[in-house]
Amino acid sequence: MSWKRWLLGTPLETERFREERLRVPIALAVFSSDALSSVAYATEEILLVLSIAGASALHYSLPISAVIALLLWVVIISYRQTIYAYPEGGGSYIVARENLGTLWGLIAAAALLLDYILTVAVSTAAGVAAMTSAFPGLLHYRVGVGLPFLFLLAVGNLRGVRQSGRIFAVPTYMFIFSMTSLIVAGIVRAWLGYPAVEPPVATFPDIQHPLNLWLLMKAFSAGCAALTGIEAVSNGVQAFRRPESRNAAVTLMIMAGILAFFFLGTSYLAHVYVVVPGVGQTVVSQLGRAIFGAGPLYYLMQIATAAILMVAANTAFADFPRLSSILARDRFLPRQLANLGDRLVYSNGILILAGSAGFLLILFGGNTHRLIPLYAVGVFLAFTLSQAGMVARHLRLKGERYRLHALINAAGATATGAALLVIATTKFLQGAWIVILLIPLFVIFFLRTHRHYFYVRQQLSLREIEPERPLRHTAIVPISAVNRATVYAVRYAKSIAHEVEAVHVAIDPARVDQIREQWKAWGGGVPLRVLESHYRSMVQPLVDHIDDLMHGRRRNEMVTVVLPEFVTAHWWEGLFHNQSAFLIKGALLFRPGVVVTSVPFHFSR
Amino acid sequence: MSWKRWLLGTPLETERFREERLRVPIALAVFSSDALSSVAYATEEILLVLSIAGASALHYSLPISAVIALLLWVVIISYRQTIYAYPEGGGSYIVARENLGTLWGLIAAAALLLDYILTVAVSTAAGVAAMTSAFPGLLHYRVGVGLPFLFLLAVGNLRGVRQSGRIFAVPTYMFIFSMTSLIVAGIVRAWLGYPAVEPPVATFPDIQHPLNLWLLMKAFSAGCAALTGIEAVSNGVQAFRRPESRNAAVTLMIMAGILAFFFLGTSYLAHVYVVVPGVGQTVVSQLGRAIFGAGPLYYLMQIATAAILMVAANTAFADFPRLSSILARDRFLPRQLANLGDRLVYSNGILILAGSAGFLLILFGGNTHRLIPLYAVGVFLAFTLSQAGMVARHLRLKGERYRLHALINAAGATATGAALLVIATTKFLQGAWIVILLIPLFVIFFLRTHRHYFYVRQQLSLREIEPERPLRHTAIVPISAVNRATVYAVRYAKSIAHEVEAVHVAIDPARVDQIREQWKAWGGGVPLRVLESHYRSMVQPLVDHIDDLMHGRRRNEMVTVVLPEFVTAHWWEGLFHNQSAFLIKGALLFRPGVVVTSVPFHFSR
Repeated sequence: MSWKRWLLGTPLETERFREERLRVPIALAVFSSDALSSVAYATEEILLVLSIAGASALHYSLPISAVIALLLWVVIISYRQTIYAYPEGGGSYIVARENLGTLWGLIAAAALLLDYILTVAVSTAAGVAAMTSAFPGLLHYRVGVGLPFLFLLAVGNLRGVRQSGRIFAVPTYMFIFSMTSLIVAGIVRAWLGYPAVEPPVATFPDIQHPLNLWLLMKAFSAGCAALTGIEAVSNGVQAFRRPESRNAAVTLMIMAGILAFFFLGTSYLAHVYVVVPGVGQTVVSQLGRAIFGAGPLYYLMQIATAAILMVAANTAFADFPRLSSILARDRFLPRQLANLGDRLVYSNGILILAGSAGFLLILFGGNTHRLIPLYAVGVFLAFTLSQAGMVARHLRLKGERYRLHALINAAGATATGAALLVIATTKFLQGAWIVILLIPLFVIFFLRTHRHYFYVRQQLSLREIEPERPLRHTAIVPISAVNRATVYAVRYAKSIAHEVEAVHVAIDPARVDQIREQWKAWGGGVPLRVLESHYRSMVQPLVDHIDDLMHGRRRNEMVTVVLPEFVTAHWWEGLFHNQSAFLIKGALLFRPGVVVTSVPFHFSR
Repeated sequence: MSWKRWLLGTPLETERFREERLRVPIALAVFSSDALSSVAYATEEILLVLSIAGASALHYSLPISAVIALLLWVVIISYRQTIYAYPEGGGSYIVARENLGTLWGLIAAAALLLDYILTVAVSTAAGVAAMTSAFPGLLHYRVGVGLPFLFLLAVGNLRGVRQSGRIFAVPTYMFIFSMTSLIVAGIVRAWLGYPAVEPPVATFPDIQHPLNLWLLMKAFSAGCAALTGIEAVSNGVQAFRRPESRNAAVTLMIMAGILAFFFLGTSYLAHVYVVVPGVGQTVVSQLGRAIFGAGPLYYLMQIATAAILMVAANTAFADFPRLSSILARDRFLPRQLANLGDRLVYSNGILILAGSAGFLLILFGGNTHRLIPLYAVGVFLAFTLSQAGMVARHLRLKGERYRLHALINAAGATATGAALLVIATTKFLQGAWIVILLIPLFVIFFLRTHRHYFYVRQQLSLREIEPERPLRHTAIVPISAVNRATVYAVRYAKSIAHEVEAVHVAIDPARVDQIREQWKAWGGGVPLRVLESHYRSMVQPLVDHIDDLMHGRRRNEMVTVVLPEFVTAHWWEGLFHNQSAFLIKGALLFRPGVVVTSVPFHFSR
């Protein structure tokens, strides 16, 4: 396992498991990367939808962006209340489960798990798009560029780098600096009357789609990707320095301000600089080339964009394993997801997340536009359930000014609920159906898991256990030849049971007499039974024989099958020997009262 | 396993294992498909090499084909003697091993095994090329068309259809009919002075390669693919009706006559009809279109070509498993290769052959031209060793007219040996190096395997075995919780050993007191030991504890680790439980004197 140690580092002691407390500037970097990074693709998605109705339709991106920015603020004000209500961290699963009931909580959890997987896939795809915009030679290797990044993220998180927030501050602030420069320079440049530097050639379809309400709703749905990730702060209130809720609320407001500024700024500049989507370059990259020229500032911006998208993917690598460990502790997911690995991280969750996101990347060819329709459904479902849960909570607890608080959350829930409906209908055929299908399947899996653990607990219970009676058992030693390994196995069998029987399955009838002869000399007085085998199977005659033996036995009578097992000096030498022990174990596993034991025989070379 | 039954059929009884005896017409179909089918690509390979020296160089294909046909007859006359010398079947491995020694036999065996794998890969690729010539739309799906054929061949052979020679007579005779019609019609047409129907546009390189001896040697090497498969008759003399050797010799001569006629005929027509290679259609397909027109005769010929190539691949599915089972019985390959499966076929050999050939098909993109350079080296090496072995045999046995016989075989060995040198040098860089590298690696593997089984035998020997002394052993029951499964495991442990100890690894120190408390009530008087774990590992503290226990013990003292094992009602429910039993077994496997037993606890739902 030395390569594992090299890749993941040496084990960490359990006592070192505690969270670092973050100041606001670092927390902003840690929690806002997911939300801010969506600026890299949100405007582009709006333009892409509108472009099928021709160049003139692109103007509608401005009012649509304004509506989305308004929606952002309604949600933010609503989430601010969640932060104060759940200082220990109020993820949608916890809020919905506590206030709406288990089923709604599980629906929110399913939506969130899918959302985290998609965050990783979309962020990786968009990060790769930022790189391919700067270096078009890479365009054909999108999946090939994305997967190594995913691998690095997985390894980094398995090592447990998650704790060091400081590292993540660099790309986030680099991105904030680049985008601010871009928007300010772009606006100044436009006011001074400079034209766009070489606008790329637009490719509008010959037959244009009519510009109707449906198309505008689709464009709105596409732009809603801008809101993904804004719930991160409310999930992680615990990670802030005291006073946690106040610091978290301040961070949330700053983040929302920056996000709105970037999103509206990008949409405005795309409008002014007549940028079009779908030309093998992202909208932000086109703006960068138009405003900065293809100089160092442009490349810095592309690198910062790719980097913040990787950090955004990284937040999902903290959130997914954490949520699945909570679900596992509540017995809605297999308990292995709650095990802390060598490096004090939930290794199984990290591996499942990386695997699923990699699968999506390959399935959708690393294409952001094809992944986006799957993305927003889960996010908005979780938003809506979380805020609806807050409404229920206010009405139940009846705290100070609870009517006003309930109203604020109700406004948020209504707004995101309406957006959810629009998104689910307009994007249904492009891929939203996958998520709409998966969420109930996840919930069914959660409930089945829960039921399984319930039955297991019930059957393991010590109530009404039979009183202890001495066990009586027969040992059976299957032998295919008479050699040192079988003799040792028989000796072991004699030490654990009073009745011992050796059994030979006669696959080659020519050898039977020889084996009988040898057994007389070496069998140590143990009787040998020969079983016929018409179909050259070693296993079936043995199983039939044991069934005969067990027939009519009582509960305290058992059969132990003692198998000589060859342990070779090198693992690959195991390939030189029949793996019949494995087959025999498999065949007898489901027979009550039968225990299978291997007595290892070690070869020195 | 019901899908396996459905795919492969029900098991067959051992008594049904015997070979069918074949009459000459059927035997011709069974044994000549490999040799005859090479007509489908041999001429084309010659033309392909020559074409890089321009259109005028293509004329040299006629003398080259004549030389190859001559070589064919020298080899056939030589092999005729092998048939009489080895009426029980004289494969190159047997002949070389018996007359030249084990090492040469193993070299021949390695060459043959590679040759069989390549037969499958090349025949499948060429069969697909026959289909894509007739249906050009399939050209981009070569691998996708080839792999299902391979799968069908593997399934067919796992079912054991090999015996029914009659089925294979249809494609072989269909091919013989089509090719005869093609050559006769082509010659008549040419004499009557009809021009070629739309000769395809040739694509010769702008800078032409000089036509030198090296190029002619390369063309000769490429054409030698025509000789592959002619050794099949001498391997299978046993399968003929009495008198076996005479019938086999007759079949060999008929086959050689047909092969020479087809090969020379194809080369002649390609010359007359100015056919050029490398235009997305095979040479034979071009001839068919030119002579028959794109009518039913043409399509029949393409289908017959594809079908005989599949039959040729099928012969390797009989030969590879048979040879590897012989090697396995001689302990040069893992013994599993000698096991007869459910359906009385060597299933493991079939699976390895199909997997390797599929790997080659994918690696070389299903392209015949890229596979051919690997092909002939193994074949000619086996030819040469087999005939050299015959020379040694004649000189040793000194039978009637042994000098003449030795001379005939020496001529054959010299001819194929010279061809082998030409092939190995001219095709070295195009892929022959792979085979030249693999053959010694195979031989090393054979020898290592042999040595391993020798050591195993030695260590399993009963000589100087210690006299039996009563074993003393301690049972250890690792428990993670106190429940019905652990209580049953402890009861079992008490029945097999006098000293029993329960062990709890304290991964969660908060639960230790509770477990101690429960143990007092349910432990049945067995002492409980608690082990600390700083790194959350269940396995390491347990292994350390057992090492402590074993320290200083004598040979007749053992430790049995009794693990409670959860057996769930459905296999997938196993995913809901820790697989620590598996890890514990793995960790303790290499410790002498330690036996690990699982006591299954069955969940009913």
